[in-house]
Amino acid sequence: MNKKYLRDIQSEYDDRNLPINKVGVKDISYPVVVLDRADGIQHTVARVNMYVNLPHQFRGTHMSRFIEILNKHRNGISTLNIRKILKDMLDELDSGQAHFEIVFPYFITKSAPVSKEQAKMEYTCVLSASSENDYYTLEVRVPVLSLCPCSKEISAYGAHNQRSILSVKIQAEEKIWIEDIISVAEKSASSDIYSILKREDEKFITEKSYENPVFVEDIVRNAAVSLQEMDGILWFSVESENMESIHNHSAYAQIEMDLRAKNQNKNTKENR
Amino acid sequence: MNKKYLRDIQSEYDDRNLPINKVGVKDISYPVVVLDRADGIQHTVARVNMYVNLPHQFRGTHMSRFIEILNKHRNGISTLNIRKILKDMLDELDSGQAHFEIVFPYFITKSAPVSKEQAKMEYTCVLSASSENDYYTLEVRVPVLSLCPCSKEISAYGAHNQRSILSVKIQAEEKIWIEDIISVAEKSASSDIYSILKREDEKFITEKSYENPVFVEDIVRNAAVSLQEMDGILWFSVESENMESIHNHSAYAQIEMDLRAKNQNKNTKENR
Amino acid sequence: MNKKYLRDIQSEYDDRNLPINKVGVKDISYPVVVLDRADGIQHTVARVNMYVNLPHQFRGTHMSRFIEILNKHRNGISTLNIRKILKDMLDELDSGQAHFEIVFPYFITKSAPVSKEQAKMEYTCVLSASSENDYYTLEVRVPVLSLCPCSKEISAYGAHNQRSILSVKIQAEEKIWIEDIISVAEKSASSDIYSILKREDEKFITEKSYENPVFVEDIVRNAAVSLQEMDGILWFSVESENMESIHNHSAYAQIEMDLRAKNQNKNTKENR
Amino acid sequence: MNKKYLRDIQSEYDDRNLPINKVGVKDISYPVVVLDRADGIQHTVARVNMYVNLPHQFRGTHMSRFIEILNKHRNGISTLNIRKILKDMLDELDSGQAHFEIVFPYFITKSAPVSKEQAKMEYTCVLSASSENDYYTLEVRVPVLSLCPCSKEISAYGAHNQRSILSVKIQAEEKIWIEDIISVAEKSASSDIYSILKREDEKFITEKSYENPVFVEDIVRNAAVSLQEMDGILWFSVESENMESIHNHSAYAQIEMDLRAKNQNKNTKENR
Repeated sequence: MNKKYLRDIQSEYDDRNLPINKVGVKDISYPVVVLDRADGIQHTVARVNMYVNLPHQFRGTHMSRFIEILNKHRNGISTLNIRKILKDMLDELDSGQAHFEIVFPYFITKSAPVSKEQAKMEYTCVLSASSENDYYTLEVRVPVLSLCPCSKEISAYGAHNQRSILSVKIQAEEKIWIEDIISVAEKSASSDIYSILKREDEKFITEKSYENPVFVEDIVRNAAVSLQEMDGILWFSVESENMESIHNHSAYAQIEMDLRAKNQNKNTKENR
Repeated sequence: MNKKYLRDIQSEYDDRNLPINKVGVKDISYPVVVLDRADGIQHTVARVNMYVNLPHQFRGTHMSRFIEILNKHRNGISTLNIRKILKDMLDELDSGQAHFEIVFPYFITKSAPVSKEQAKMEYTCVLSASSENDYYTLEVRVPVLSLCPCSKEISAYGAHNQRSILSVKIQAEEKIWIEDIISVAEKSASSDIYSILKREDEKFITEKSYENPVFVEDIVRNAAVSLQEMDGILWFSVESENMESIHNHSAYAQIEMDLRAKNQNKNTKENR
Repeated sequence: MNKKYLRDIQSEYDDRNLPINKVGVKDISYPVVVLDRADGIQHTVARVNMYVNLPHQFRGTHMSRFIEILNKHRNGISTLNIRKILKDMLDELDSGQAHFEIVFPYFITKSAPVSKEQAKMEYTCVLSASSENDYYTLEVRVPVLSLCPCSKEISAYGAHNQRSILSVKIQAEEKIWIEDIISVAEKSASSDIYSILKREDEKFITEKSYENPVFVEDIVRNAAVSLQEMDGILWFSVESENMESIHNHSAYAQIEMDLRAKNQNKNTKENR
Repeated sequence: MNKKYLRDIQSEYDDRNLPINKVGVKDISYPVVVLDRADGIQHTVARVNMYVNLPHQFRGTHMSRFIEILNKHRNGISTLNIRKILKDMLDELDSGQAHFEIVFPYFITKSAPVSKEQAKMEYTCVLSASSENDYYTLEVRVPVLSLCPCSKEISAYGAHNQRSILSVKIQAEEKIWIEDIISVAEKSASSDIYSILKREDEKFITEKSYENPVFVEDIVRNAAVSLQEMDGILWFSVESENMESIHNHSAYAQIEMDLRAKNQNKNTKENR
């Protein structure tokens, strides 16, 4: 091969004086291994974005190095290991900032409430981190059941209910288990939901949700109350999207809260 | 411009002896005007596929002509006008078969059941036809409410319910109004659903659906019973996808039926 | 109807002391009319989110009022009219903050570069505004063609190229035409693209793009240079997603820039 | 628990005289293990549909049993094992027909053509079977590169090219490796594509695709020629969707062919 053909244009000088905030690969589908509290590890399939910044004097980045780094780390993606990935990106791409984002389905073996029948239940997770911050961001999307308090109150019998997606997004530095986020979310709704249910379970959930009506506003408030009490959370945003059974659109609510001030107060007290 | 550069490769001879069933353009987004029973016409935005067959001796078709035909007819898409589109495709592309498919949101002004408040309600429609057949195929996806009879029966109070998408697909030669298909679908469920509801409407729907529980199997059977009685329908398939509020997956049922035999019997009797 | 059934639970007191940042309706599909520079108005179909904040002492909002407001304004959605929608939301929902977001396909009649054949070309737009700010945010997603400079440089002939989506997001207070954003975007790539092309047009675009190679980094820098010069823009973010023809993932770049400081400097100089 | 609440409504008599073609669960996301020619097995995440027919006299099916069967077989999904799943469905649901459909991303370690750098490449697979037939249906969606012969021919330099999705769907009774389908598909285009490429690979692919231009019609014809020669294939459909770099829509072609007659002729000759 004639080497003169292979000039490295990407490394050439750029005179537009414009640094690029993020450049890299987006939407690559990749098999990965993540941590699983019950089983140690879990195989799943992720969609990944990886970006670095590009100083103004360089024309382009080197796209193949992102894939090399992803491939190297694919068997150990976790909230802590993500720092090693970011470090490799900074080193290999000779860059000042690195960003890593990964979306994946996460499965938990869940037992039905009465029959105890077991099946896998899916929760979508989004994990991201940036070399700019010491924290990571973890989002867990938890499907739950919501039963409308207004409908129950004004109706002679019954109450409309529906599947809701309660998304909990947190910033943290220490390890937070996906399972703990799910637990908070599932307790915030009228009932949690299951992949497998026998008739005795269906009775249980129907009655539990009727006894436990929540507006979309209640769901996010319930979750916010619990998240405020959890250790290690620096910031959170909870949003619920109720796929209303009486409409063809969703009801939505969101609460966002920075707990750093609270945590500092706590630390100050504890250090006295 | 040097004309020798513009050789028409598509028209050249192909010696692989393989006719192509369908060739054309797919997934073009286009603004169109469709018939509206209440208002005469309705503006909407469609996603369109247009294909012809290609005899074995030709290497390629002429893609730009599909867009010319779509652009020419975009202000009058209907179950009847679709024949003119197919004819233009056969003529312009010098082909033996033509296929036209269009997906679009269709809106109906719908009044709440008690308060009579009005808003637009969306129904997704798929209209397709082929020069091979005299009929067209029309699918209407109707969101409805389904309340589970089992949950109601076994529970001390309440019953799980959810949004379902009831898709009715018909073959017909004569004009069938989208509105008539929607009407059949909405009567097959526990209740129809609305874009706007006041408290008195919410009470009405909650109670109506509790009085009217249906399994996913009941929904498609109810729709099938009605479709069997509708004039002009040659064949139908109804499917319901219930986005279960107690699961993170759907319950599904489907019935398909060819009514040509029945219609022939009827005609025979009528002609005696 | 017995009025005791219709208690207004939403208005009751909530003691969890948690205000809600956003509550409302999400993902409602609605037919709307938007401004069109060439034709005055344009009919399209939008997906809409509408939220207000909810003070801590109230348990819930009134979902039906959002739909009433949307229905009232649906025939005149524009970057300026959006202020009236926000005002109606504040008034009708008795709230301190209001947020409005709308996504819609926007069509422009575009002529092929040589043959001048005309067809409609789609651009996805996202318009949002909040009562908290005086500006609106407008995002326009523009499909373009990108041809790789490295591939051209190192190869004996040819160069890989692909469809890219160049998304330009701006904040502005004054009216900015969608058409002007599109124009900036289309000039930033190897070539703009078309719904209809004849052979002479295809030759033109193939050669133009080969003469005009751009990395994903170049595209966003080119757009950023133009946006810095446009009047009325307070802030922008441009991102390009190149659906690489040699990979099954995208190359991505993004530049974000706040122009308020620059504009203030300019104003200061002008006012001297 | 009071057993009178748990009446089995699903098993009750239905008098509408309408058998249901398909009833079951749809769109459940589940972790599964599939066969992998290189590594023995592969962990992936699937989306699954499972249906049975329901005779006219029964009101409903038993949804939980589908999940039990899926959970039981999830660690060994294959073109052959699918018969055992169907048999369990027939037995457990006491039904006359069973249908199983599964969509999953499948990954192959692929080496770049010159540098031999390795990374995982994703191919979407759809496997389905019905107790009604002895064959299974396997679809593999293979992303490839297509370079336009017309653009190359008429232009002074360059040629537009793009990512295409070539979907090969086959019916077979014997085991056909996903890898063999992928191999046929990748040879039918201008070039195959890769997750990781170094500059020398990029040069190789750019030149290879320029030397090897194909229309969307050529791609499906090339694949059809190869599939006709493969052992064990009873029927196939190949379709290519070229995400045109010069348009915002796709070019599309499809060929469908039943090889049972051909195979019978071959068998007859061989048996002489």
